[in-house]
Amino acid sequence: MLGPALVHEDLGASWRSARPRPAGRHLDSAACSRQSHRVLEAVAHHARHEAELGGYVAEATAEDLLQQGRSVIGGLVGMAAADVVFVESAQAALVTLLAAWGLPAGARVACLPGEYAPNAAQLRAAGLGVEPLPVDGLGCADLEGVARLLATDPPRLVHLTHIGSHRGVVQPAAEMASLCRAAGVPLVLDAAQSLAHVDTDVGADVVYSTSRKWLAGPRGVGLLCVRPAVAAELTPVLPAPDDVPPLRALESGEAHVAGRVGLVLAVGEHVAAGPARVRERLAALGRAAREVLEGTAGWRVVEPLDAPTATTTLRPPNGVDVVTTRARLLTEHGIVTTAIGPQRAPGEMTGPVLRVSPHLDATFDDLEALATAL
Amino acid sequence: MLGPALVHEDLGASWRSARPRPAGRHLDSAACSRQSHRVLEAVAHHARHEAELGGYVAEATAEDLLQQGRSVIGGLVGMAAADVVFVESAQAALVTLLAAWGLPAGARVACLPGEYAPNAAQLRAAGLGVEPLPVDGLGCADLEGVARLLATDPPRLVHLTHIGSHRGVVQPAAEMASLCRAAGVPLVLDAAQSLAHVDTDVGADVVYSTSRKWLAGPRGVGLLCVRPAVAAELTPVLPAPDDVPPLRALESGEAHVAGRVGLVLAVGEHVAAGPARVRERLAALGRAAREVLEGTAGWRVVEPLDAPTATTTLRPPNGVDVVTTRARLLTEHGIVTTAIGPQRAPGEMTGPVLRVSPHLDATFDDLEALATAL
Repeated sequence: MLGPALVHEDLGASWRSARPRPAGRHLDSAACSRQSHRVLEAVAHHARHEAELGGYVAEATAEDLLQQGRSVIGGLVGMAAADVVFVESAQAALVTLLAAWGLPAGARVACLPGEYAPNAAQLRAAGLGVEPLPVDGLGCADLEGVARLLATDPPRLVHLTHIGSHRGVVQPAAEMASLCRAAGVPLVLDAAQSLAHVDTDVGADVVYSTSRKWLAGPRGVGLLCVRPAVAAELTPVLPAPDDVPPLRALESGEAHVAGRVGLVLAVGEHVAAGPARVRERLAALGRAAREVLEGTAGWRVVEPLDAPTATTTLRPPNGVDVVTTRARLLTEHGIVTTAIGPQRAPGEMTGPVLRVSPHLDATFDDLEALATAL
Repeated sequence: MLGPALVHEDLGASWRSARPRPAGRHLDSAACSRQSHRVLEAVAHHARHEAELGGYVAEATAEDLLQQGRSVIGGLVGMAAADVVFVESAQAALVTLLAAWGLPAGARVACLPGEYAPNAAQLRAAGLGVEPLPVDGLGCADLEGVARLLATDPPRLVHLTHIGSHRGVVQPAAEMASLCRAAGVPLVLDAAQSLAHVDTDVGADVVYSTSRKWLAGPRGVGLLCVRPAVAAELTPVLPAPDDVPPLRALESGEAHVAGRVGLVLAVGEHVAAGPARVRERLAALGRAAREVLEGTAGWRVVEPLDAPTATTTLRPPNGVDVVTTRARLLTEHGIVTTAIGPQRAPGEMTGPVLRVSPHLDATFDDLEALATAL
């Protein structure tokens, strides 16, 4: 069964041929993408290099490559190489940032009501008071309400999750950045779900993300990008090594360096594919998924059909268990998706959803197979 | 030039044949050991599996292996599988522990004066008051003085770095654990330099360590082991998943899972080699290094000749720069060592040292080559 062609099928074909053949149908890039042969080989090669040369000697030989990676990643978020450090994960980035920022206990941070629960927990653990941003019915920031909040009772900072892990809706990050800048309130952007998925060069003061999702890099690598004005407010727990930008004090030293090398190659593959073309195809895949899946066997799509993301979430029909469905899709049909319970974003979710998140190599056929299996 | 045989040469030969041929002479396992072919292949295989199956599906298939690893690692520190979680590094283990413990600001923690500076910084960042343990002239805990401290003015906890990163001296951890237990003061043991190097089943309440040093596992993986009595005092920032021991709330979810798989294989190789035999050969290598190096070209060994470790540190002769020497050894002779500045343990070091840390595959010839090059 071959469906209609989607935009940039050449990109789908080249993405597909660049990586191992999937065991089934992989519709789970919002959890973890499929690395390319080249990335897998670069990681393995660096690890072997570590065994031959010594871990730190190998790291020194990779430093030019890592610095090139910081530079390109900086470009994706509108910052410079000196503003980018490697950490272990998006969560580690947030924890590292908050530990260095040392905001006074009770300082107020405004978040979406649908904030990712682990982020909200880390903000609270740092002693911050978490308050809701005004939103519309879909959980999107209400810009007029945000402007009023910033004008009348500005929080110490705004933390915005660009695309939720539980909903394929893009927040108006560029507009939020403008409002925050005008109010002198720093904007921290969680780009775990948005980097290499939608445009992340939006003017945020801090952007953090992960390697393993839309960039299709290795697991165990994260990114923290901080503009100099915020960096100047940070007091790192550990001092920076000599001869590097001061922010480098936040880069972890005990690290999966081979994974960082792999991430740099993955970033290169993203840039080579063309970020704008990538976005167009991912959005087309999301739209196709929603059109195919809406109403199938009683499942209902949460996002607007034309949300410019590849992530679709589905509310189950009455009496259907999402965890069981996800397991059945995997074991009986080889279709990889994620079951998301309401505890992931308890301020917004009223029940579980099934998340479908194809990357560039997915086909219309994959989406139809999912609909049939549902 | 072949020197005298060291104890368990068979172990040296099998360790050597199990891993890639080194580019030079690797005497730097206190920084990062050389992974075996089997570990390198297991990591690469799991990463490929992630690309074929999906990252989280691959992780689920590895869970039995990971649980076996937790069990064997638990055995090395005298704890159960349920007491062991994987994190990203030894530093991450300490940060995670302190964040969950939530000790009141100003609570007192007693450490060696020669405490590893990043550990002391993390303890201070957690709001703790860091106080010195009484020590002898070599920086070894003075057990009578510790007993007095615990009897008269007990701290909230004792943090003991079992073997320093800057000195191949073993602290009397078992005796410290007895004293602390009798006093009702928890003992936290930093085993980054001691796990798989000396006996770490000493009765500490918390043991944390790293994969990449004496276990010869991958970089980017750490271990945190917590006895139930201390675990009961912890309030994790994030909730544990269902159906796992509560401590699992401290295990990072966004992680280098392939590295954890590799670590489990590396732990298996350590156990197969025989931990007691490993310790004997490492101690013999340390003793041989000290005998060969003491006085060479004016360099002086810091440790007692018979310290039961493989780590030797050398004070330079007057006018010789350690950083320059380390670079010269590497570039001119292919000998990998580490230059350690006094900022690593400012409460104890009075100047820089050159650290020499052979693993099982090192030979007497390697040590003589270093002496000649110095």
